[in-house]
Amino acid sequence: MKILPKLFLTGLAAAIPLAVAPRAAAPGNSPDYTADGQLRLPDNYREWVYLTTGFNMSYSPAMSQDHSMFDNVFVNPEAYAAFLKTGTWPDKTMLVLEVRGAESKGSINKAGHFQGSSVMGLEVHVKDAKRFEGGWAFFGFDDSKTAKMTPRTMACYSCHEQHAAVDTTFVQFYPTLLPLATAKQTLSKSYLKENGTENQK
Amino acid sequence: MKILPKLFLTGLAAAIPLAVAPRAAAPGNSPDYTADGQLRLPDNYREWVYLTTGFNMSYSPAMSQDHSMFDNVFVNPEAYAAFLKTGTWPDKTMLVLEVRGAESKGSINKAGHFQGSSVMGLEVHVKDAKRFEGGWAFFGFDDSKTAKMTPRTMACYSCHEQHAAVDTTFVQFYPTLLPLATAKQTLSKSYLKENGTENQK
Repeated sequence: MKILPKLFLTGLAAAIPLAVAPRAAAPGNSPDYTADGQLRLPDNYREWVYLTTGFNMSYSPAMSQDHSMFDNVFVNPEAYAAFLKTGTWPDKTMLVLEVRGAESKGSINKAGHFQGSSVMGLEVHVKDAKRFEGGWAFFGFDDSKTAKMTPRTMACYSCHEQHAAVDTTFVQFYPTLLPLATAKQTLSKSYLKENGTENQK
Repeated sequence: MKILPKLFLTGLAAAIPLAVAPRAAAPGNSPDYTADGQLRLPDNYREWVYLTTGFNMSYSPAMSQDHSMFDNVFVNPEAYAAFLKTGTWPDKTMLVLEVRGAESKGSINKAGHFQGSSVMGLEVHVKDAKRFEGGWAFFGFDDSKTAKMTPRTMACYSCHEQHAAVDTTFVQFYPTLLPLATAKQTLSKSYLKENGTENQK
């Protein structure tokens, strides 16, 4: 009978690695690169945490579109969990922007728009501090499962650095995260200045 | 030394309940009712699997709106996993429709709409075969954390029964699930008839 406590402890020891495994980043939820530095598309991003959707959003008043589009934003669950605690993004954050065509007439829908099955664009914003100047990089996917990094000279980098609410990301458009970043005082100085709420900082 | 295999087996036996625990419905991911039959709002639905977003959708051409709205749809992960395998919903499925106000001018956005922080409506569609006539029930939440069942006489039930693509749910508006249901031949007869694709069945 003396052996029972030992058996029990051994049982627990064997259980621990299995029980804690789900807390580590799940396979596919961390940035993964090819040998020549291209990012592999995280193929399970639709099962990540949803942040928001825009409809025909544009940062330029002159932009015209011949069709309507939705853009859905997802983030890997590990980064989302960290944001809830800290109000900002940890290293290895991946934000996926999925652009979908909008449809209007279909089934019983009579007005407004719903999302169609065609994905018209996919862009991933990755935080990988040791790898990228400024900590973050963009990758635009065409039909391929891998994408080259968008060059640092492109306007998306400077625009995000100048206008983004939190750590070069547009948290101002993520309705559940903006109140959190506001409460945790992680809003960027430039965003606070632009939005007239400098006294929050 | 003869005792080692026994220890190992005991270790495994103790590990199994912990290891398989994540596959069971997580707490809060199954319908939960008050003693008087009201549904409790699943407070973690924003971390469930996202299905789609509509913008100003309407099933009636005469409907007019004085403001624009987004509606986001989420499903509990266990039901989503089952749908991927079968093309239809298991018992205890919960679909959450979250209606959010749309904003247009804010930060650097110049055109189109983004989602605001105000939730203007929350509706849950629950499959609980033993509990509800027809298997499903709607619950509309106001500001409360619990909601009474929407009476069976309301038009939402007959509309969903007559027009929904899969099992009284509007899978025709869920862009990643419609191709799946089509491939698995789980589309309803009424939907196939209405959409002129009866030969698929």
